[in-house]
Amino acid sequence: MLLLRGATEVVTPSATSVPLSGEAMGIVERHPNADVLIENDKIVAVGKNLESEVAEIIDVSGKVIVPGFVDPHTHLVWAGSREHELEWKLEGRTYQEILANGGGILRTVKETRNSEEEELQQESLIRFKNAIRSGSTTIEIKSGYGLEEETELKQLRVANWLGNLGLAETVVTFMGAHALPEGADRRSYISFVCSMLPEVRELADFCDVFCEEGAFTEDESRFILQSASENGFGLKIHADEFGDTGGGRLAAELGLVSADHLAGSTLDTIKALRDSGTIGVLLPGTPFAILSDHFAPARKMIANNLPIALATDCNPNCYTESMQLVQQLAVFRMNMSPAEALVASTINAAFAIGKTDRGCIAEGWRADLLICDIPDYRHLTYHFGINHVDKVIIGGKIIDA
Amino acid sequence: MLLLRGATEVVTPSATSVPLSGEAMGIVERHPNADVLIENDKIVAVGKNLESEVAEIIDVSGKVIVPGFVDPHTHLVWAGSREHELEWKLEGRTYQEILANGGGILRTVKETRNSEEEELQQESLIRFKNAIRSGSTTIEIKSGYGLEEETELKQLRVANWLGNLGLAETVVTFMGAHALPEGADRRSYISFVCSMLPEVRELADFCDVFCEEGAFTEDESRFILQSASENGFGLKIHADEFGDTGGGRLAAELGLVSADHLAGSTLDTIKALRDSGTIGVLLPGTPFAILSDHFAPARKMIANNLPIALATDCNPNCYTESMQLVQQLAVFRMNMSPAEALVASTINAAFAIGKTDRGCIAEGWRADLLICDIPDYRHLTYHFGINHVDKVIIGGKIIDA
Repeated sequence: MLLLRGATEVVTPSATSVPLSGEAMGIVERHPNADVLIENDKIVAVGKNLESEVAEIIDVSGKVIVPGFVDPHTHLVWAGSREHELEWKLEGRTYQEILANGGGILRTVKETRNSEEEELQQESLIRFKNAIRSGSTTIEIKSGYGLEEETELKQLRVANWLGNLGLAETVVTFMGAHALPEGADRRSYISFVCSMLPEVRELADFCDVFCEEGAFTEDESRFILQSASENGFGLKIHADEFGDTGGGRLAAELGLVSADHLAGSTLDTIKALRDSGTIGVLLPGTPFAILSDHFAPARKMIANNLPIALATDCNPNCYTESMQLVQQLAVFRMNMSPAEALVASTINAAFAIGKTDRGCIAEGWRADLLICDIPDYRHLTYHFGINHVDKVIIGGKIIDA
Repeated sequence: MLLLRGATEVVTPSATSVPLSGEAMGIVERHPNADVLIENDKIVAVGKNLESEVAEIIDVSGKVIVPGFVDPHTHLVWAGSREHELEWKLEGRTYQEILANGGGILRTVKETRNSEEEELQQESLIRFKNAIRSGSTTIEIKSGYGLEEETELKQLRVANWLGNLGLAETVVTFMGAHALPEGADRRSYISFVCSMLPEVRELADFCDVFCEEGAFTEDESRFILQSASENGFGLKIHADEFGDTGGGRLAAELGLVSADHLAGSTLDTIKALRDSGTIGVLLPGTPFAILSDHFAPARKMIANNLPIALATDCNPNCYTESMQLVQQLAVFRMNMSPAEALVASTINAAFAIGKTDRGCIAEGWRADLLICDIPDYRHLTYHFGINHVDKVIIGGKIIDA
């Protein structure tokens, strides 16, 4: 047993009605001068002056404890690097222009195909550890830089390998429909993606599709997602990144677990997503990194009771592993409150990847916790650009990443 | 002697014509597979396969070396905290409204006046160390949370104390004219600020004035700055933060060392500043933290050959110590290139606080260096939200902050 003794405050979303939406997203429980008692991988008590004769005691005086962050959308397993494309973006080239010229995703596809599996493991492990040191305790990872069988499987194996290191858990997503490979026939490629589904199911719990101009159409996305559903996958979609182009509506129609990006979603789409029980996963790092002011309309979503989660979108075009920075962008660019950002990065993010046992600090929940070197939980966003995480506890164990 | 051996690259501004402006701001020298040799607090050589029989050797293979960051504008010495005001800002209250209701600067003034000097030292030291761990090797610090003799002196003493700890150097600025204290008569307060100048000169090298609606007028600012000039101070100004309200023009008229903020400066003001030899110090953390899209027009400044520097503005309303984040904001929100951001954070920033011996990695320059855990210097901005600084060298010594 582990007893965290004397935190300045223990701060957690309420788990009354999950995922949280509307006004409930803006409310967190604050337990001042509190302890947390952990047995194996579960929280067994939160409160003042807890006692245990057998527990190892950790003094957390002067610290704030929050749930471990869940990052429900990353492409963290890739090879190579695209800093030169940042300079292109600064010269005014758009995401779609760079992609159409063999850059963007297609460049990373080349480098990932050419990488040895062990090399891919090591490059990805550095990022995985960066994420954990920044507070992520469960991390979703997608394939989609292979766009051919061998490399997709390699990426999925690496994502599973990372999750089995005894550090953070991973949730793995197959995203063969990330882009159309260079020179491929659309119909054949989509058939190929669907043909991989049964084999891939052992390596991935979710299937995701990039529904956007330049990637896959609404009909193509529907076809792939329906096949994935028949194969037992949970379903996700990259939708409405640049405008309301049908992806959000499709997510609502099919009742997906999450619809991600949504920067361009209209009010009708937001309401449809709410009614379908879909969680909106917002990725403010992406507009930040592509020099755009077009952040998702988080306030409109919260006002209309769509539950929202936050994620890094960690990829070579939005290269950050930090859920702290993402929360800061959510507050300073999308006008979310510090409480809403925390809820969206913990319990709602966990639900967006089907993990209903974590993201809350209360009896019976999984012991994924962050011990933070701040005087008040709001400093996670108010005090920006600095890593506030002092210790990371995952499944009841202190993790040295 | 210290030999840093085998860096992936050593990257530095050229010091041909300083401070750098225009196209020269966008060019850095890149020395691949290079060593750096240091004797005492100076760099003595940069190049391939350097040898020294007496030097301590540090293996920096796989790392990138850049000059230490210089943060030329902070208010780092304060007491208390204002995270509750972040929630007010999110509800739509403006900076000026919060100030007019006794919040903002005036709230921090109360808390700083009420703090014991040792308490103020310790609170500030935490921030100072955060800054150093994030790569700042020389840090300017202003007073201005006293607005009365005793507390202004206390702040200035703490700023000097920080600089004498053997960590980063500090450059200290007297800013009695930061705000009008509550209930004060304008004329009497301005006279009081000027009366402090001779005494304060021993503790501060620069004098700064907040020239803005709600703070000090152009005429009042001119009067204070001229008095400061007569007392031997270097001169700075907070100018044009919200619009072109005369501060930038005044800086040009008086030929100040730097004019800081400049988010609202017009093209005429930018040209006037260029012609007066003033450096523009841009503070992108501030609009970021006050939920504004009104970033300084960096591209227009560079196109018109105004040399620019970057700074954190670290204060309770823009609470970040990280010059890495500031460079990331410069790139992703002001469209500066990674090279321009680096130049603006090193040699130009040093010149903005009168330090002409640092900010460049070449023979004879001060050995303030960062050993960064990145494959290419552009990752300092391309890969955002993560602290890339592995080791900090200040005055030739490895600093453990």
